[in-house]
Amino acid sequence: MDSIKNLITTLGENAKNAAKTLRSATTMAKNSALINIANQIKQNRASILKANKQDLANGKNKGLEAALLDRLMLDNERLNDIVESLNQIVNLPDPIGEITDLKYQPSGIQVGKMRVPLGVMGIIYESRPNVTIDAAALCLKSGNSVILRGGSEAVYSNHALYACVKQGITQAGLNENCAQLIDTQNREAVIELVQASDYIDAIIPRGGKGLVEAISNSAKVPVIKHLDGICHTYIDKDADTQKAINIAFNAKTRRYGVCNATETLLVHASAVSRILPELIAQYLAKGVELRGCKKTAKLSNKIITATEQDWHTEYLDAILSIRIINSMSEAINHIEQYSSGHTESIITENYTSGRRFITEVDSASVMINASTGFADGFEYGLGAEIGISTDKFHVRGPVGLEGLTSQKFIVLGDGHTRK
Amino acid sequence: MDSIKNLITTLGENAKNAAKTLRSATTMAKNSALINIANQIKQNRASILKANKQDLANGKNKGLEAALLDRLMLDNERLNDIVESLNQIVNLPDPIGEITDLKYQPSGIQVGKMRVPLGVMGIIYESRPNVTIDAAALCLKSGNSVILRGGSEAVYSNHALYACVKQGITQAGLNENCAQLIDTQNREAVIELVQASDYIDAIIPRGGKGLVEAISNSAKVPVIKHLDGICHTYIDKDADTQKAINIAFNAKTRRYGVCNATETLLVHASAVSRILPELIAQYLAKGVELRGCKKTAKLSNKIITATEQDWHTEYLDAILSIRIINSMSEAINHIEQYSSGHTESIITENYTSGRRFITEVDSASVMINASTGFADGFEYGLGAEIGISTDKFHVRGPVGLEGLTSQKFIVLGDGHTRK
Repeated sequence: MDSIKNLITTLGENAKNAAKTLRSATTMAKNSALINIANQIKQNRASILKANKQDLANGKNKGLEAALLDRLMLDNERLNDIVESLNQIVNLPDPIGEITDLKYQPSGIQVGKMRVPLGVMGIIYESRPNVTIDAAALCLKSGNSVILRGGSEAVYSNHALYACVKQGITQAGLNENCAQLIDTQNREAVIELVQASDYIDAIIPRGGKGLVEAISNSAKVPVIKHLDGICHTYIDKDADTQKAINIAFNAKTRRYGVCNATETLLVHASAVSRILPELIAQYLAKGVELRGCKKTAKLSNKIITATEQDWHTEYLDAILSIRIINSMSEAINHIEQYSSGHTESIITENYTSGRRFITEVDSASVMINASTGFADGFEYGLGAEIGISTDKFHVRGPVGLEGLTSQKFIVLGDGHTRK
Repeated sequence: MDSIKNLITTLGENAKNAAKTLRSATTMAKNSALINIANQIKQNRASILKANKQDLANGKNKGLEAALLDRLMLDNERLNDIVESLNQIVNLPDPIGEITDLKYQPSGIQVGKMRVPLGVMGIIYESRPNVTIDAAALCLKSGNSVILRGGSEAVYSNHALYACVKQGITQAGLNENCAQLIDTQNREAVIELVQASDYIDAIIPRGGKGLVEAISNSAKVPVIKHLDGICHTYIDKDADTQKAINIAFNAKTRRYGVCNATETLLVHASAVSRILPELIAQYLAKGVELRGCKKTAKLSNKIITATEQDWHTEYLDAILSIRIINSMSEAINHIEQYSSGHTESIITENYTSGRRFITEVDSASVMINASTGFADGFEYGLGAEIGISTDKFHVRGPVGLEGLTSQKFIVLGDGHTRK
């Protein structure tokens, strides 16, 4: 295992040296690199798709399931999307160097904050090859050097895409080690990476809960992580009937396999009769399996009685649990107990209820009269998203460029000494 | 050790439950608690001083050194300072609930950020009993419940002060577990605390490097930490002579034992003759031991030749290392290699040099024409300081109330569903 440790040390030293130059690289140099990468992808379309075919063939031989093969697959359209996302990142304002809150203090000095990169990021991901480009681009734009570690299923695709990244970076005159790809599939490399606190400033794992938990447990480096998305929609007693039906339906059925889908619907007892029968009918017509508390189960013989486990479950599927509660406090307590802290929404026309909900509910996103499906970096205007954090430390909710930065203090004086 | 684990679990559960109510406590309730604590201290002055005498007597019996006994000592003046700092925290604006950046997005939803507490803080400190009050007050004001663990030397003083905290909290109608004191001196309790990631959101160790390193190494909870303060003052070729002399002298000699004191002076070769002889004379007259590079050592036979180790050393004493360098790049490289990332200052009248220095130097505080001694939460206008972070993740530099908070997203809609 010494050779793996040496590999990570070398990558770490390279990344740290690259970060020293990248943190003061001009916006133009960083944008040039991104445009170059996009051009490289366009020019090397055929070889990228060929590499991807190799991964797909290997995956089929290994018997990978269809959903995983779909995530792995690249075609012309997906490459166009990757190029388009690079262009979007070029168009985002450069967060680095922004000076805010520069104010005079009683001593006469001016004190402000300057936004700076974190330094060296480690990104660990699974089968989606587009993450190679996305992660490299977001780190570059935010002035961070990055060490990438993709999944073994996508090894050929990742190498082909990474070749474009490296070309694009060097063409822009930046240090080639601004982005590096770990090219061993030895799992020990991940463990060494997440423990390399001398070199890595933060790790972002992008993948399933198993990956994220394994990384968090062995990490010595700070991890920006996303665990479950057990999101709740709460229909208050003062909910508008049509808004409640539209939002609750959309929050579950827009897409099933996403972390911002509502998994549990809470309904105030006094709103049940005017809202729930219609909503249940719509869910059932759409093919959603419903698991309700005892009161809910009485509303239709097609509703399964929910178990305690249901309230803890992120279905990521066409399944919804429903609970009728008798007060807003009960709803907030349910959320406190079962939510993963991702996203919760209240449907209400009542000013005080709305105000209370956004104050008391402790989740990364808290909404009034909107679908939980909006919890997303693009919908929030961040312009890009490298992940969603369910932590509170450093960054919470959708993570855009700013989540990859820190702020240092700057002090401007004119010969000032302190008493 | 099971009983210690159980103790921390109980404290953690209590703290988490208290945090649920504290996060939406009104500003008035939190301020009332702080005022009550101040009144309790005033009313119990005699018994606090008696408890402190007990600690001092025990300390003397154990042969504690004078500096430590001084840190441990309370008298009427120091109690007045503690009361005054409580009043200052009362007067600070409540950071919690502040909504910023609330903007309409193309979908029609409004998205903003709301400042919220981190949740449960753990504060581990050494012999200064005032930290019991300071830390409890800052955590309360920022809506965090707190578990305090003071040093064994101050056990009687801390209990006496903590009794005031508990009284003050309950008199204000807040959950008494908003602040808890660990009342065993078993060291295992610290290890359990910093690993209790189910209950604790962040740990702040306040003490020497040994304590901070030990905690960081065993922590599973995020740590806001402060390691060395190896601060640099760089006198540029275009420095104003008098400003350079005043600032460099002040930055070293204002106080020796503080983390923001300059430990290494870098001087551009072309500024040496007009600045360094006068400055050296002032330092020597003040009794500062000087350790210089070979060129510097030639300027006075009272200057000791510095070793490699000197550039790595935080003296915290009347000692200064001095190095003459030939370019600004050399100065920046020296800082990159030896600085602890705390505070660095450039003395220059040159616009481009100043601009380059604050951009390229990667430290928590970067200054132009000001003494490194200004690196302090009060001087920066934070109103209070719970510590100084030399990390980049979450918070950097002096940590005030805002460093104890996070931001969640809030979304306001009017029946909005996502496509």
